[in-house]
Amino acid sequence: MTQSHALDALIQSLRRLPGVGVKSATRMAFHLLQHDRAGAEQLARALEGAVRSVHHCARCHTFTEAEVCSTCLDPQRDATRLCVVETPADQAALERTGAFRGLYFVLLGRLSPLDGVGPQDIGLQELIARASDGVVQEVILATSFTAEGEATAHVLSEALQRRGVRVTRLARGVPVGSELEYVDLGTIAHALADRR
Amino acid sequence: MTQSHALDALIQSLRRLPGVGVKSATRMAFHLLQHDRAGAEQLARALEGAVRSVHHCARCHTFTEAEVCSTCLDPQRDATRLCVVETPADQAALERTGAFRGLYFVLLGRLSPLDGVGPQDIGLQELIARASDGVVQEVILATSFTAEGEATAHVLSEALQRRGVRVTRLARGVPVGSELEYVDLGTIAHALADRR
Ligand SMILES: [Zn+2]
Ligand SMILES: [Zn+2]
Repeated sequence: MTQSHALDALIQSLRRLPGVGVKSATRMAFHLLQHDRAGAEQLARALEGAVRSVHHCARCHTFTEAEVCSTCLDPQRDATRLCVVETPADQAALERTGAFRGLYFVLLGRLSPLDGVGPQDIGLQELIARASDGVVQEVILATSFTAEGEATAHVLSEALQRRGVRVTRLARGVPVGSELEYVDLGTIAHALADRR
Repeated sequence: MTQSHALDALIQSLRRLPGVGVKSATRMAFHLLQHDRAGAEQLARALEGAVRSVHHCARCHTFTEAEVCSTCLDPQRDATRLCVVETPADQAALERTGAFRGLYFVLLGRLSPLDGVGPQDIGLQELIARASDGVVQEVILATSFTAEGEATAHVLSEALQRRGVRVTRLARGVPVGSELEYVDLGTIAHALADRR
């Protein structure tokens, strides 16, 4: 498409980033080559460094460079509460709120029978073992409020409650700062049903 | 911000891409590490390859891997028409239209006295020499229709016409496919003034 195979290859590679179409990828590639070659080299090194050194925590599965992440190793955290999330990004978002002081279990996915993702693929047995270790007193399900996230929460909830584990779910409701008239109807209906 | 320096470094590096804020960079980094490590490695190699092998054509200054680009070397191109653009991206956009069969001169910038960009920084002397080589019969100014792009076109036009070169400018007007009511008033006013 351009006069350079290396430039075309860069545009194609940038398109693998989520949310980046051919127009954005082209703009990014031209920008880097014309104005920020140091930035391009820095990004290349950062990509290689992250792929080489970032892996999953042996206990909670979030991203870490250590065998076990610093959250799992932190004695100040409340080990009686275990929060289940779908992805390391969800775990990071919850951490940023500063509102949760317990520990995490990252599923690295959610149930999706059509895509062949079953309970074993999201570590159900490991979660059950963890939740039954005698320390955990409450499992908080923080999977997404999508069809697949809700189905995942339902299956996990059944399996855990069958073993006598106390299970809760994040509240659905109106986002903080929203004006009611602009909130979708399903959210309002759920907020009404889950009113306190 | 996360539990991994390498992940933080990747997020920071992704922010150097144009149009990518901290939210997008975070989403991209988590996506690559969780779902597309091969894509991350491919992007790293593509960045290194492009920085290493893409440079500017010795004649027109667009991006190429050769000493002189394939457009400049193409004997089928009409060497009597020289189109002046600001960036290799603008040159690529014009090429994609297929509407221009002449040659190019890429300024690699535009006049911006406040940023210390003067005529020597956009190759005015080289452009004058090129336009006065006895082959070029028309210089088409295709700098942007912004204040700086217009000022650049004005300065280039004066300098070239003083040397007897025929200078034209891309037409301003209503974009193809636009409904008049949604076009900004300045554009409509120019389209009216430049009516044919
Ligand atoms: Zn951990
Ligand atoms: Zn060239």
